[in-house]
Amino acid sequence: MSERLLVVGGDAAGMSAAAQARRLRTAEDLEIVVLEQGEDVSFSACGIPYWVGGQVADRSDLIARTPAEFAAAGITVRTGTRAEAIDLDAGVVVTAAGERLGYDRLVVATGGRPTRPPIPGLDADGVFGVHRLDDGAAVRAAVAAGARRGLVLGGGYIGLEMAEALQRRGLEVTVVLADPLPMQLLDADMGRRVCDGMVAMGMAVHTDQAVREVLVDAAGRACGVRTDVGSYEADLVVLGLGMGPEVRLAADAGLAIGPTGAVDVDRSQRCRDHPEVFAAGDCAQTFHRVTGEVAHVALGTHANKQGRVAGSVIGGRPARFAGVLGTAVTKVGQLEIGRTGLCTTQAEEAGFAFRTDTIEATTRAGYYPGAEDVAVKLVTEAGSGQLLGAQVVGGPGSAKRIDVLATAIWAGLTAEELAGSDLSYAPPFSPTYDPVVVAARAVSRTEQG
Amino acid sequence: MSERLLVVGGDAAGMSAAAQARRLRTAEDLEIVVLEQGEDVSFSACGIPYWVGGQVADRSDLIARTPAEFAAAGITVRTGTRAEAIDLDAGVVVTAAGERLGYDRLVVATGGRPTRPPIPGLDADGVFGVHRLDDGAAVRAAVAAGARRGLVLGGGYIGLEMAEALQRRGLEVTVVLADPLPMQLLDADMGRRVCDGMVAMGMAVHTDQAVREVLVDAAGRACGVRTDVGSYEADLVVLGLGMGPEVRLAADAGLAIGPTGAVDVDRSQRCRDHPEVFAAGDCAQTFHRVTGEVAHVALGTHANKQGRVAGSVIGGRPARFAGVLGTAVTKVGQLEIGRTGLCTTQAEEAGFAFRTDTIEATTRAGYYPGAEDVAVKLVTEAGSGQLLGAQVVGGPGSAKRIDVLATAIWAGLTAEELAGSDLSYAPPFSPTYDPVVVAARAVSRTEQG
Repeated sequence: MSERLLVVGGDAAGMSAAAQARRLRTAEDLEIVVLEQGEDVSFSACGIPYWVGGQVADRSDLIARTPAEFAAAGITVRTGTRAEAIDLDAGVVVTAAGERLGYDRLVVATGGRPTRPPIPGLDADGVFGVHRLDDGAAVRAAVAAGARRGLVLGGGYIGLEMAEALQRRGLEVTVVLADPLPMQLLDADMGRRVCDGMVAMGMAVHTDQAVREVLVDAAGRACGVRTDVGSYEADLVVLGLGMGPEVRLAADAGLAIGPTGAVDVDRSQRCRDHPEVFAAGDCAQTFHRVTGEVAHVALGTHANKQGRVAGSVIGGRPARFAGVLGTAVTKVGQLEIGRTGLCTTQAEEAGFAFRTDTIEATTRAGYYPGAEDVAVKLVTEAGSGQLLGAQVVGGPGSAKRIDVLATAIWAGLTAEELAGSDLSYAPPFSPTYDPVVVAARAVSRTEQG
Repeated sequence: MSERLLVVGGDAAGMSAAAQARRLRTAEDLEIVVLEQGEDVSFSACGIPYWVGGQVADRSDLIARTPAEFAAAGITVRTGTRAEAIDLDAGVVVTAAGERLGYDRLVVATGGRPTRPPIPGLDADGVFGVHRLDDGAAVRAAVAAGARRGLVLGGGYIGLEMAEALQRRGLEVTVVLADPLPMQLLDADMGRRVCDGMVAMGMAVHTDQAVREVLVDAAGRACGVRTDVGSYEADLVVLGLGMGPEVRLAADAGLAIGPTGAVDVDRSQRCRDHPEVFAAGDCAQTFHRVTGEVAHVALGTHANKQGRVAGSVIGGRPARFAGVLGTAVTKVGQLEIGRTGLCTTQAEEAGFAFRTDTIEATTRAGYYPGAEDVAVKLVTEAGSGQLLGAQVVGGPGSAKRIDVLATAIWAGLTAEELAGSDLSYAPPFSPTYDPVVVAARAVSRTEQG
């Protein structure tokens, strides 16, 4: 007898779950229906800044697979269909239109909810999010309509990427943030490099300022922001204030919410009290590989993997999500930024005795054209030398080096073990000692006294 | 009472040994003298193709530190001084000029010896090695003098890099190799990609041809080569036939030579029967991290590290070399190549039951400008899924991904563990799943059946 899998939310986590379950079970055995409140599924929110910036030409480029393509693969996608409630006892999802859809298995993949501070003016015309493709289209339209001054609220990944995008489109760019420096998941010395880089690009960066109000002109359009320090004019305002888990549906239904505010799941993405219900992606809580503690990290990579874990289990194949390090990369202009594991603040919070080491090197042999400065900072456990976290800031060719460090942390290597490792060298690709090894060596040398 | 450290050979291994010993022991405690037969120390042989190709402007760019700089650091460098013999019983090195220099500790760092086949014409004018800076100067001079057709013998790293260099300088390039494909430490399917790339660049690539003779014109200059298949005209001939260990001095002295033909040392770079003598770099035997077997891999990275190990031990700090994976990168034109660990042939020789998986992906999000095709091939142990080796061939941004795989192999990860790891993602840097993860996933998915 056929079962039905309902998936609420049609982006990375939801569609990965659906696709993986479909790989493992036939359409006769398992019907799969995805409910998506928007018009797009399987789209790249991470690509929106590059669509705004013009590196990506078409909205359709950001859509990995269309509902029709999923249909051809035996997955029914119902766009424009908002799930309003879950009746866990009955095993039913109720849509906004009042339709009651029964399920045998349910995947909650409701994603993230952009942070919106409770300030006046936030709903005015000319204030834009960066969450859905329609947001990107709206910013593009505002730029095309002649906006000259762009103001970005927030200094995280999205903030930096949107600042770059607006500057590429010729706007004067102002970035306003409440934190002392951009990129709060970097240590201050590394965040300072990012801030200096943004200023060197010609951006106005105003730090340590809490935004109080979006200023609105007589026509009802945003014309700037006021902070506790000053006011800044703008023709458009972009919100890049981070993302929390979107859990209203799950919480209302009575699914357990963890201390991070996200849906509590086990390592198979299962809700503990409702083994027929799974949650995955930005709405779900996960755990940190280094600390072992619960964590909430809203990133597409995890969403994809967690969705696939849920889909595997539903498909009958045991699977577990292996945790996160919080690895991330971004860039602003030519400046590349990577981070993984614990920064200083996180290492302190987790109770580690640790040390930090920062080195400066070049991305290629110093004599090779395009060699750029790169700084690598390592956080290691005192005594054992175990790698806990790493940060990289530098010119083109810097950021992806964080993957070597993420792999080393993932594997539990010490700095000394990494220092001895056999990384590749040729003048167009690195100095004789890769910057990653130079950093690891700095730790192990000092540890030896 | 002061001791004397003699170092024979002033490039990567020798100067690393000298520098590390100097860091750990004062000039009063340890005199350090380096004998170098050439005029340069601490130079980048790996940079020669880029000096020939014009990316590097000056010979001096390839010299990391001069004898005067070493002298200022308390290391005496005697260039133009050839060590002719070692008297192990007396603890004396005899120079070509007949001088006898006593030592308490000795580091043999005589480097590599370029392979020269026993064929007629190899010593003619217009035939060039790629070993010392003078070789680079000679090729540059030949190009400046109007050479139009360059012929490279050999399809390894040096061959490819010199082929690129000559083409950059406007020469018609022919590459002749005895092997069926370039890059013998790649599997045939990956080597085929390299070969196709070279042909697409406009190079003539003649494979499976043993060279029989360098053709010489009436003026005594090389004018082409003859193989067992045909003859190819050229105005200059470059030898890129690989490198063996230069062990004449060590072997004549009676130091043990291992089965690889290189000087046998323990993991502290010590000659087993002569604990006061160390060997490091291209002249020394080492061991492979995956197989545990002895190996000889002539690469500057190992030379630096082994020299530093020897210098540490001499300096009184215990140290061990951690082995090699044979990680390497190179490029020819826009095509990047990386490899680490065991290729298929090596895995067979080592007696592993193994499988291979090859995937194709892109270096960036498919929609992001500059996304290039990349192929990743993994060699994994059957059953356990342990990573044994990896190969990467693709466009710009491909090669350095080998470092993630090298780190994973170094740490003993399985493909499944790597597939679960937290690598970075943003559209300018990778697809949502990095190609490395896509490859690891292909293994673990199939292993699960």
